[in-house]
Amino acid sequence: MTRILYSLCGADESRPFSPHCWKVVQALAHKQLDFTERPMPFTEIPTIEGGFSKTVPILRDGNELIRDSFEIALYLEQTYPDRPTLFGGEGGKALARFVEGFSQMVVHSAIARIAVKDIHDMLGEKDQVDFRRSREALFGRTLEEIDAARQAEIDGFAEKLKPIRHTLQYQDFIGGETPLFADYILFGALQWMRITAGAKVFSEDDPVALWFERCLDLHNGIGRHVTAA
Amino acid sequence: MTRILYSLCGADESRPFSPHCWKVVQALAHKQLDFTERPMPFTEIPTIEGGFSKTVPILRDGNELIRDSFEIALYLEQTYPDRPTLFGGEGGKALARFVEGFSQMVVHSAIARIAVKDIHDMLGEKDQVDFRRSREALFGRTLEEIDAARQAEIDGFAEKLKPIRHTLQYQDFIGGETPLFADYILFGALQWMRITAGAKVFSEDDPVALWFERCLDLHNGIGRHVTAA
Repeated sequence: MTRILYSLCGADESRPFSPHCWKVVQALAHKQLDFTERPMPFTEIPTIEGGFSKTVPILRDGNELIRDSFEIALYLEQTYPDRPTLFGGEGGKALARFVEGFSQMVVHSAIARIAVKDIHDMLGEKDQVDFRRSREALFGRTLEEIDAARQAEIDGFAEKLKPIRHTLQYQDFIGGETPLFADYILFGALQWMRITAGAKVFSEDDPVALWFERCLDLHNGIGRHVTAA
Repeated sequence: MTRILYSLCGADESRPFSPHCWKVVQALAHKQLDFTERPMPFTEIPTIEGGFSKTVPILRDGNELIRDSFEIALYLEQTYPDRPTLFGGEGGKALARFVEGFSQMVVHSAIARIAVKDIHDMLGEKDQVDFRRSREALFGRTLEEIDAARQAEIDGFAEKLKPIRHTLQYQDFIGGETPLFADYILFGALQWMRITAGAKVFSEDDPVALWFERCLDLHNGIGRHVTAA
């Protein structure tokens, strides 16, 4: 059976960095499923599997093709119910959407501002042109203007993660005593920053930093395999 | 069997307003359990049940006494497993802590700034003295100084609820197709503001406003029974 995860890379395909793809890497490892990762540059995504999706991750699982990280996690949970659960029941599935909302609306928007110039610099030449144009339109500023506010974003970052810190007072993972997909959602965001910007955003004894280190150790350290920027 | 919920009120005991107590009102109704609510002023909390807890809610359930809204929800789930679930499984239980973190760190801190003067004005004379002293120490400003920034807090409030709005794209409640304790956590916060400040913080067609209206309708409209400020 062929299982392929199409993910995202810059000029160096050994350093895939997409937060959404990292969620799926961890979810596949959690389900103990073998897979081959195929990191692709931004501008080649439309060529994957006959133009199946405008974004990665895309998972091919035998004859099935699935797009979107949350859809892929739901698919894995349904298709491989005897493997370790990614959601811990229906309540966990519903509330994982809230964690996704927090991750995308609060954490991603901060990381995008911290890492945008680093991401640009990692891309191949063709991707750089597209990336600069689309991101400058999105932010209404040049990449260099966004990058000038980088240190202020870094300084304000740890404060934004208070809801995670609160949760870790009660349990080792967001999902409880062991991780769930909700952990991988937030892990994906911080892994994206680790690989692209490498910014130091917490003190080493911050409970969020300690949780992130635990996540890097999961599944034979699959997350630590790609080194920090 | 005697089931009593000790909650919080100001001078008018028909208008209990504590967010943490409202979570428990909804949780008890969700579990279809009869109870008597006994709203108490701040300064009388130390007299409840022989000084059992410095804060409300306190639940007496026959011979059991339980403090803290989340502890009470866990107790109800364990003690009444055949009634409708408050968590939807172990994953839902773990992730409800994350929703609690978001509610307390992000939503409560904003509402406290919007409603602090309104809350003060609702209290009896003895409570007002204590409340002013403790809150002015906490914020490092007078109640009147905090209140002067009220409109700016109101204007910035809807933006902070983006993670809730994201979740409601996929489902009618935070807990899925029907509400879970996670809904009551966030409901409690907005109900606190509704009863104390009555501030208009969203447009009427905001998905969060529509969800809040659905929550007010739950369990025979137990949340709507106390009118808005």
